[in-house]
Amino acid sequence: MLIISEPKEMQLLANNLRKEGKVIGFVPTMGALHQGHLRLIRKARKESDFLVVSIFVNPLQFEPGSDYNRYPRRFEEDRYKCEMEGVQAIFHPSVQNMYPEDFSTYVEVEGLSKYMEGEFRPGHFRGVATVVLKLFNIVKPHFAVFGLKDAQQYYIIKRMVRDLNLDIEIIPHETVREPDGLACSSRNEYLSEESRRQATALYKALKLGKEMIFSGERRSNKIKEEMKSFIKENAPTSKIDYVEIASTKTLEPVETVVDEILLALAVRFPEARLIDNFIINADEGYVLNEKI
Amino acid sequence: MLIISEPKEMQLLANNLRKEGKVIGFVPTMGALHQGHLRLIRKARKESDFLVVSIFVNPLQFEPGSDYNRYPRRFEEDRYKCEMEGVQAIFHPSVQNMYPEDFSTYVEVEGLSKYMEGEFRPGHFRGVATVVLKLFNIVKPHFAVFGLKDAQQYYIIKRMVRDLNLDIEIIPHETVREPDGLACSSRNEYLSEESRRQATALYKALKLGKEMIFSGERRSNKIKEEMKSFIKENAPTSKIDYVEIASTKTLEPVETVVDEILLALAVRFPEARLIDNFIINADEGYVLNEKI
Repeated sequence: MLIISEPKEMQLLANNLRKEGKVIGFVPTMGALHQGHLRLIRKARKESDFLVVSIFVNPLQFEPGSDYNRYPRRFEEDRYKCEMEGVQAIFHPSVQNMYPEDFSTYVEVEGLSKYMEGEFRPGHFRGVATVVLKLFNIVKPHFAVFGLKDAQQYYIIKRMVRDLNLDIEIIPHETVREPDGLACSSRNEYLSEESRRQATALYKALKLGKEMIFSGERRSNKIKEEMKSFIKENAPTSKIDYVEIASTKTLEPVETVVDEILLALAVRFPEARLIDNFIINADEGYVLNEKI
Repeated sequence: MLIISEPKEMQLLANNLRKEGKVIGFVPTMGALHQGHLRLIRKARKESDFLVVSIFVNPLQFEPGSDYNRYPRRFEEDRYKCEMEGVQAIFHPSVQNMYPEDFSTYVEVEGLSKYMEGEFRPGHFRGVATVVLKLFNIVKPHFAVFGLKDAQQYYIIKRMVRDLNLDIEIIPHETVREPDGLACSSRNEYLSEESRRQATALYKALKLGKEMIFSGERRSNKIKEEMKSFIKENAPTSKIDYVEIASTKTLEPVETVVDEILLALAVRFPEARLIDNFIINADEGYVLNEKI
């Protein structure tokens, strides 16, 4: 397995692979690899001749005062996991490599970045879109796999790829969960034992919302209020940033549940902020990110 | 010569050319090709196996109330000129092809876009950076040639390419001028006979500024004032948007002329707004965009 830190070196490799007709797969990560990442890697492995995993904690997507400094970094463990999964190369640049001192170019995906995470983490999606575009230009993949736990990010990246004519297929992967339903996240390990126990309320609240929709409830406010009450009762030490129901086309909040909607929430525990969501097809009655 | 309007078709062609090891050259234009464009095309032709010229009047870079609608469009004439120059393909998309209805992704190059044209044409460079990035992703060139008449645009594109890790060489081309010194521009044809005559004052003012610098004058204000007076006297029906002296590193105005500076101006005639500039190496005493 190759470990590459220089963008130019990665590009040279990608150019040669492409000339040989090899299919380059890509899984961008911030490291601290968990089961969620490993499932993405396995999916990408199957579809590629050469799989690149990037490990880069991107300062640009951490808003001021957030957990950039304490975000877990454990390269040796991640490297071992990638090796075991048959990854062909890790791209692992330094911050200086990615952001020279007078760096000044940013990508904005307007509209889709306005609500939910975009509202509570100003600048976050600008940082995500910018680094993902850079990584795409460096790794030159044919396809990239993104987990649907970060559903808003997925929609934003899809839009960016279409709008900027990137010749890259964006493949979604279902949300991977712990046995008790908590969505896998590198931030779960921040949680105290008590918070970890309460955190299962997020998944349960999503299931509650889903059941209401599948039972015919179409009033967003009604569903959101029930979910909030449930979280307040079952995760009393947490604070809710939002529980939202949004159109998957525009990510704008909707008053009435129709067609396909994103049911998303963000909750702050004393040690960590967690997000989770269901992409729900209300008409046909299934949860999209439980099955792809 | 191929005429391609579909981005996907152009990408497929580019992928195949790259697999064959061919060097793809690129000259992006808004059409209405003049001597300036043709010189860029000749330069690009020499260095490429396959030369693509794009012809696309990009609505995104025209600020409200500007000349988007009356900008000259003469595809058949441009096509003939490209054919004569040995261009291999024209990429000529429709506006709908480039900007679907819910298009929402924009590229911003901060800092460099703040002054001069950026100040007088808000949104202009966002439109330029966004369309150039799209065109790069569609044409997939190894290099692209940009004329230095649009010096600020050149610096912004260079920065974007570096910041976003685009694997593309940006090649500058000296400013091409009419016999009387007026920089070639598709907008020159808007000018009345009288304005066309007065417009030579722009080049003469730049030469005046240059001579002051080469004679040892280092005070920006002094140089700018002399140039403005000259323009007012010799192009009395025009209005000056700016005469500026800026660092070529940051494009920020400088009080004192040192190292390499951009001496730039924008002037509005009743029929058209014109820009021109010299990139001046003050220490070694030459004008960069008169010789490359």
